[in-house]
Parts: sequence; structure tokens; C-alpha cells
Amino acid sequence: MKQARLNIPAGSKVAFQGELGSFSHRASIKIFGSKNESIHCTSFEEVFEAVARKRAELAVIPIENTLAGSIYKNFDLLAHHSLEVIAETSLRVEHSLIVHKGIQLRRIKNIYSHPVALEQCTSLLRRLRGVEKNSYYDTAGSVKFIRDHGLKEAAAIASEEAARIYGMTVLKRGIEDDPENYTRFLALARRKRFSRGGEKTSIVFGLRNEAGILFKALSVFALRNIDLTKIESRPIRGTPWEYLFYLDLQIDVRSKECIHALRHLRELAPYLKVLGSYPVF
Amino acid sequence: MKQARLNIPAGSKVAFQGELGSFSHRASIKIFGSKNESIHCTSFEEVFEAVARKRAELAVIPIENTLAGSIYKNFDLLAHHSLEVIAETSLRVEHSLIVHKGIQLRRIKNIYSHPVALEQCTSLLRRLRGVEKNSYYDTAGSVKFIRDHGLKEAAAIASEEAARIYGMTVLKRGIEDDPENYTRFLALARRKRFSRGGEKTSIVFGLRNEAGILFKALSVFALRNIDLTKIESRPIRGTPWEYLFYLDLQIDVRSKECIHALRHLRELAPYLKVLGSYPVF
Repeated sequence: MKQARLNIPAGSKVAFQGELGSFSHRASIKIFGSKNESIHCTSFEEVFEAVARKRAELAVIPIENTLAGSIYKNFDLLAHHSLEVIAETSLRVEHSLIVHKGIQLRRIKNIYSHPVALEQCTSLLRRLRGVEKNSYYDTAGSVKFIRDHGLKEAAAIASEEAARIYGMTVLKRGIEDDPENYTRFLALARRKRFSRGGEKTSIVFGLRNEAGILFKALSVFALRNIDLTKIESRPIRGTPWEYLFYLDLQIDVRSKECIHALRHLRELAPYLKVLGSYPVF
Repeated sequence: MKQARLNIPAGSKVAFQGELGSFSHRASIKIFGSKNESIHCTSFEEVFEAVARKRAELAVIPIENTLAGSIYKNFDLLAHHSLEVIAETSLRVEHSLIVHKGIQLRRIKNIYSHPVALEQCTSLLRRLRGVEKNSYYDTAGSVKFIRDHGLKEAAAIASEEAARIYGMTVLKRGIEDDPENYTRFLALARRKRFSRGGEKTSIVFGLRNEAGILFKALSVFALRNIDLTKIESRPIRGTPWEYLFYLDLQIDVRSKECIHALRHLRELAPYLKVLGSYPVF
């Protein structure tokens, strides 16, 4: 049976974008448990840098949301940096409207949250006429912000957990437009810190520029019955209209099929990097 | 020989995001010529709505940039609306630093532009210490903004063309970090207004959820030597971890190979829509 979470030394430093109570923080607890030190970052670049420059041992980043789609910035950063993906998890994203204690809905003049969260609650926001929307870099951070500044006529959109952490009040629960709202997160570490392997493998590669080449690249997996759970493409800087492809494969990188498939792919792909092979929590 | 541009009645209304002199406006002139009426929109939703609700006959939208990647919002809108792609073009994106006449670099305290343009000029912006960056919805619009408000200590980042249109001065040319900066644009119309056909065909489809299905979908083109120039995937709302796939094919939809390939694809794809088949200018 698989362990409930990844074994790491107690007190490890985990970097993520946002404050305590952010969705990345919750994903971090799900993967690593809660006996760690949080390193709060304000951007994804900063999260990657924190691990690369050893300010943190580990990081957790969101990679995809079922409504908003891929978090493209993090795909670019995965190719650019040489960190290793060591685990994956996903969370149901439920948003709450959070205020100071005793504040009623009609007093609210401003709403703060991450732009994606604001966009995921449009049906509520449309009903609140005359209320101003304000972008903030983090959902939980927006709760902390209205608390620290004593903004009584403001509300924040974040998880219930964030309300609890910052001692604020949940005015409305489940305010997201669409309940099928999940975010997938990856845990990262510097290379060779963790043994490679698990039910999923993520790779990134660049192909020779010839007709049908992507089809050939996918054939190396299809021919070996290796299931593809995700494909993403991003532009290659300096080479207009050429792309890096990112694949998530439902297989352990140590399996014979995967070893053969990747050797086969190298014949077609001048650039190939295994981003990691990891368990899913 | 292909005509230089698409034939449309003089005085047609063309919707695009941004002001005169924006890159979308320049793409519109390249595809349709300059004897049209511009319908300026502040968002891509508004551009699609303008054509769908007959405020405009035509639209031009950016779909992909060689540095920033796909403009995902417009992929989503293409699937959501039932407009037809009737032409494609691409433009080299060159940015200029634009100011009021007689203003020198050291007087500038604020820079306005579209966030993507600001990100594409980071090496210049990093050298200008203490200058504040301000996001604006459009490059050319930011030139108009600093002119209309008489902001003498501000500069805008936009095309030279925008400086000319608004009677402003180019302080520096070619300020983008990477000269391999191109944007691809699509022209749109309501369905059946233009005869379908041209060197490219764009489609969007959803697949049954089974192992190796994307490989099979791509095989319908590879088996017929139809070249794929772009693949994009976006989440399907309400169905977590399933995707719509967008393909650009280097073929005329009226060709026998394409007709066979699409019939073959329908066996695998419960949802399939031809977004258009069109000439490239």
C-alpha cells in the first residue's frame, strides 16, 4: 500500500506562492504533512529560485486547473530550471466570501482575490452591483491583507481554511460558478534528492522540424500501450513557430516499456528532459 | 497568383481589440486593406460579440505570439462562438518607446503598455531604474492615453505606426528583448459569408476518453500526409482532466485527403467543428 504522504525530514523548508491557507499551502500539507517551514513567495519565478538557490529544499506549484487550464508560466519554468518533479496531488477548489466579524453583505464595497478566483466567481460578483474587484497575487493573502489593513468594507475570496487561519468570518461558502473546479499541483526538489519513480512520468522535448513528427513522437508511447494523460505545447524562444512539448505519462520511468519508449523518442527529439517520475497523492 | 488581400465591400466594419495603430489594426489592414470602418473593442469577448451580434461584419484577433505563446482566451472563444476563420496573417512585432515631443528619457517616470509588451521589453525597463510600469489594455491605446491626458513624464510602448497616428515622438526603436517576435492573427466572419477554402484548415474536437486516443486522432492526418502546424489543448468545463484539441492543418478543407481525414476523425471524436479553411496573407 502506498504511504499517505512523502517522507521528508521534519522542519524542511517548502516554498510556494502565497500565504498560509493558500491552495498551494494546502497541497503542500497533503503531500508533505504540516511539520515544515513555509517559504512564502510572491511569484512562481521566486518559488523556483528559492529551491534552485537552496533557500528551500522543496516547492509546491499549481500546474493546471480544470476551468482555467494550464498554468503556462510554470511549464516554461519547468523547462528552464533543472528541478525535479517528485510528487503530484490535486485539490478541489472551493471559494468562500470572507469578511471581518459582524460585517454584512450589503456593507461590502471592495472584493480582493487572485484574478483567477475572481473569474471563477463571476455569477456572485455580477449580483453584487457597484462592488469593485481588486486583483491580489494570492487568495489567502487577500484575506490577510483586508485583516491587516482593517478594511471592514472589503471582502476576500479564498478557502475556508484561510478564514480560519486569519481569524476572519466566512459570509458565503461555495461561491464558485462551477463546482467541477480542481487544481493539480506538483512538488519539486533539486535533482537527485529523491529516488525517481512512481505511477506518473513527466517529460519535455523538442522535435526535428518535419512533417508528421509529433505523430511519430506519440507513437513511441502508443506502440507500447503507455497512456498519455496530458499534452501541452509552448513556443521555443528564438525559433518562431516551433514548440516544446510536455507530456504526462501514466507509467513509472523505471519500467522496461518506458525505458524503451524514451530511447525511441531520443531518435526523434534533439532535446529531451525527464522532468520527474513520481507518486500521486 | 494569390490576390494580395481578401475582397470585402468597402466600408465594412472590422472589430478588433485596441485602438488605431494597434497590432490587430495593422493585421486588419494587411488582410482587408484600409478602406474599412474600425470597431474598437476593449476585450476579446467584445470582439466576438460584435460580429456575432452584427455590430461588425468582420473581426481580427491575435491567436499566437512566438514569445508569449498561444492566446488561450481566443482559443476558448473560437470553440464557444460559431464564427468562421476566413484568413490568417502574421506580423513582426517591433516595439518603440513613445513620448510627447521634446521629452527626454531621463524625464520619464511612468511607462504604459499592454502587459505582454511590457514583458517583451524587460531589458530596457530594467535599465530604467525607478520608472513605474503600468498595464494598459492595448499598446496603441496607451499612446493615445498619455497624449489625451497630457502625461509628459510618461512613455508608452507601441508600434511606430501608433506614434505617427497620434502625433507623438519615437524616442527609441526596436526595444524588444528578442527580435524573433511575431504574432499570428486570424480574421473572422459569421458562418457562410465567405466561401470556405485555402491553404490552411483549423479544427477543434473532443475525444472519447480511452488510452492512445490522441495518437489515433493524429493518425488520421499522418496516414494521409497532412501536415500539422499547431496543436493546442484546453480544458473542457464540467469534465475535469478532459480536453478540447485544436489543430491547424496545412491543407484545403475541400481536398479529397482532408474530407477523408475528417470523416475518419469523426469516428473517434464525439465533437468536431471545422473552425475554417482559409488563405494566408
